[in-house]
Amino acid sequence: MKIVTAEQFWESNKDRSTVIKNEAALDQAVLEIIHEVRTNGDQALQGYTKKFDGIKLENIIVSAEEFSEAKSIVDSEFLPALQLARQNITDFHLAQKENSWFINNQPGILLGQKLTPIDSAGVYIPGGKAAYPSTVLMNVIPAQIAGVENIVITTPPQTDGKVNPYVLVAAEMLGIKTIYKVGGAQAIAALAYGTETVHRVDKIVGPGNAFVARAKKWVFGDVAIDMIAGPSEICVVADETAPPSFVAADLLSQAEHDESASAICVTISKETAEKIKAEVENQTESLERKAIIQQSVKQNGKIIVADSLKAALDIVNEIAPEHLQLMISNPTESLGEIKHAGAIFLGNYSPEPLGDYFAGPNHTLPTNGTARFASPLGVYDFVKKSSIIRYSKEALQKASESIITIAKVEGLTAHANSIAIRKDEPNA
Amino acid sequence: MKIVTAEQFWESNKDRSTVIKNEAALDQAVLEIIHEVRTNGDQALQGYTKKFDGIKLENIIVSAEEFSEAKSIVDSEFLPALQLARQNITDFHLAQKENSWFINNQPGILLGQKLTPIDSAGVYIPGGKAAYPSTVLMNVIPAQIAGVENIVITTPPQTDGKVNPYVLVAAEMLGIKTIYKVGGAQAIAALAYGTETVHRVDKIVGPGNAFVARAKKWVFGDVAIDMIAGPSEICVVADETAPPSFVAADLLSQAEHDESASAICVTISKETAEKIKAEVENQTESLERKAIIQQSVKQNGKIIVADSLKAALDIVNEIAPEHLQLMISNPTESLGEIKHAGAIFLGNYSPEPLGDYFAGPNHTLPTNGTARFASPLGVYDFVKKSSIIRYSKEALQKASESIITIAKVEGLTAHANSIAIRKDEPNA
Repeated sequence: MKIVTAEQFWESNKDRSTVIKNEAALDQAVLEIIHEVRTNGDQALQGYTKKFDGIKLENIIVSAEEFSEAKSIVDSEFLPALQLARQNITDFHLAQKENSWFINNQPGILLGQKLTPIDSAGVYIPGGKAAYPSTVLMNVIPAQIAGVENIVITTPPQTDGKVNPYVLVAAEMLGIKTIYKVGGAQAIAALAYGTETVHRVDKIVGPGNAFVARAKKWVFGDVAIDMIAGPSEICVVADETAPPSFVAADLLSQAEHDESASAICVTISKETAEKIKAEVENQTESLERKAIIQQSVKQNGKIIVADSLKAALDIVNEIAPEHLQLMISNPTESLGEIKHAGAIFLGNYSPEPLGDYFAGPNHTLPTNGTARFASPLGVYDFVKKSSIIRYSKEALQKASESIITIAKVEGLTAHANSIAIRKDEPNA
Repeated sequence: MKIVTAEQFWESNKDRSTVIKNEAALDQAVLEIIHEVRTNGDQALQGYTKKFDGIKLENIIVSAEEFSEAKSIVDSEFLPALQLARQNITDFHLAQKENSWFINNQPGILLGQKLTPIDSAGVYIPGGKAAYPSTVLMNVIPAQIAGVENIVITTPPQTDGKVNPYVLVAAEMLGIKTIYKVGGAQAIAALAYGTETVHRVDKIVGPGNAFVARAKKWVFGDVAIDMIAGPSEICVVADETAPPSFVAADLLSQAEHDESASAICVTISKETAEKIKAEVENQTESLERKAIIQQSVKQNGKIIVADSLKAALDIVNEIAPEHLQLMISNPTESLGEIKHAGAIFLGNYSPEPLGDYFAGPNHTLPTNGTARFASPLGVYDFVKKSSIIRYSKEALQKASESIITIAKVEGLTAHANSIAIRKDEPNA
């Protein structure tokens, strides 16, 4: 893992504008899939599932038998662990619930904001070799707490036509009845527009590959989406109180996600940097996913040496990392200086995997610097607001002249008329 | 204005799937503009301004002299009216402010949600013949209340190279110092990626034409956007207590926006429907924007006759209108039945133009049925959340086994290691 100075970091980060990649080929492929699904419905889903997942499915909905079978397969210690995680995730997200409100600051005037859950949500769970039961919890629980009535999951089938049993038991634990065995852009199209079997939903959430991400961008507007997720990132700020072995383990846990994951450490001394570097190299050797980790560390890993804690936190705000660990002597004291981060882990005993699975806050977080403007997935993503306006006749009379003046300036005379007519009809 | 039955409404609304239009030509044009602006910066902005706005600008920033001149031009009654509107908009949006919070439900565990304003926002104000000072207030005030430090406006110049004076005085009233004379997709590209003169921002808000909307869709992800706005809509539910002249005036105020605006009325009796229809026809004759109104009413206007209030509200929820007026005997009683609407206006003296300019809630609202999942623009659009996690050593020990179990199921053994290493190093 390379060690760089703060100056080198700032220099290399000068043009942080994200490049709009030329995705014309991907767009064409994705748009064709969307069009096909909208035109041919289930038949298109079956075709793509055969083509991309290598399996011909008669029925794209997971059956009751499949749910039962999954329960008999999973490790016995798994369900109790998942139950604890579920409880923590529920507790945290319950604290996110907001209320509708009214204000009545002036006589005859009632203004408010009404919160209503969205009707339906579709959760995309990636397939492939890995299982993502934690993603089921992190996406479904906030929707349930928000009050979403219809929640469905879609996930690509394995080549044997089944769905990962850990995903199934996690879904069943939460009472999810409908799981579609569909993945990729075709799943996003089906959730956005519906087919004979798949009901269209109001919001699509959950991570996915490039096809899924691009399809989400295309259907965005016709349906709500959570965010377009990029590769996972961690930034660890470590001073001399941070055990180098802990820091290294946390950096490596991020690096194992995939080759494009990014693990960055910011230290206040060259000495700390050297110790962490040695630990990274040492620990890598014995890790199962060594090949991925080495690629990721080589491409995106670095240890930055800053002159002071303040300089280190400036770098953090510039990176706006998905995960930030503050492994410094008084981490909570520095919370006010952090402007941009998806999740902030404080102290030496709050490693990022704790947040991935267990602590309670959501693990769906803004990546790639988007913590500058985006938030973790939350209950607020599954409700929407309606403004409420109620004026009495007297209150409107008092406001009439001002409204008419502004309407006329904007050239909208029928707007002015809608106010004027209420002044001129004394019998109304 | 045509009168239809509820059955006819449901029948015609059966396939409400929005069509992905073939926007390939628009996309190509927009992407070329974005690429040009990113490559050639200010020079590209000047070129497009000459091409699309018909004016060669030396300086794209509004000068102090232009601000002064604007003040001397505007109607004298305008500024006091705008001040009142500003106060109301401020009062309402102050009520939207949220706090950061912490919970400490278990010993040694602190979890929280930190709110931070985004650093910068760019507000697009449409140009053309009309002036949109109310749009300045509705977009800037929530950002200021959220605590956004850098707020800029961009708006296309008139052919004389100047900016509408009403927009300027509204901006100056709010303390906005930087206004770019740039419109269209080039303005969105400049705000998203920056040029020599234009600083890139974290979020772009404000309405615009098809080029602006499409450019926002393309830069979305690299930068945050508010929403992709469609044509304006109103839905008025009227019973026999609603004065038909009021209902007609409100429908027509919406219809005057443009030909694609949509004005729909839902009544409980044929008689009420007939009276409103007659009033619509009668009032249209004397309105300034008669030509636009007639087109809009013909294309999108309708009066639906439902059997009951419940049936009427079912139709409302299906439409999910941008603006909903409940002109019925006890409108507030029905608030709990409304699931989807951008803004809800209660009673006979709360016409939609009151909300456009004056009452306080935002006039940037979800259109085209997106009230099913989207909210009015608000203070919450200009802040983002960071999750906070702090575990003590003891709390982490207690959770270790569960976390390791889940990490292993997901195949992420370096994640498991990051937890295990904290158990195995007693001296750390």
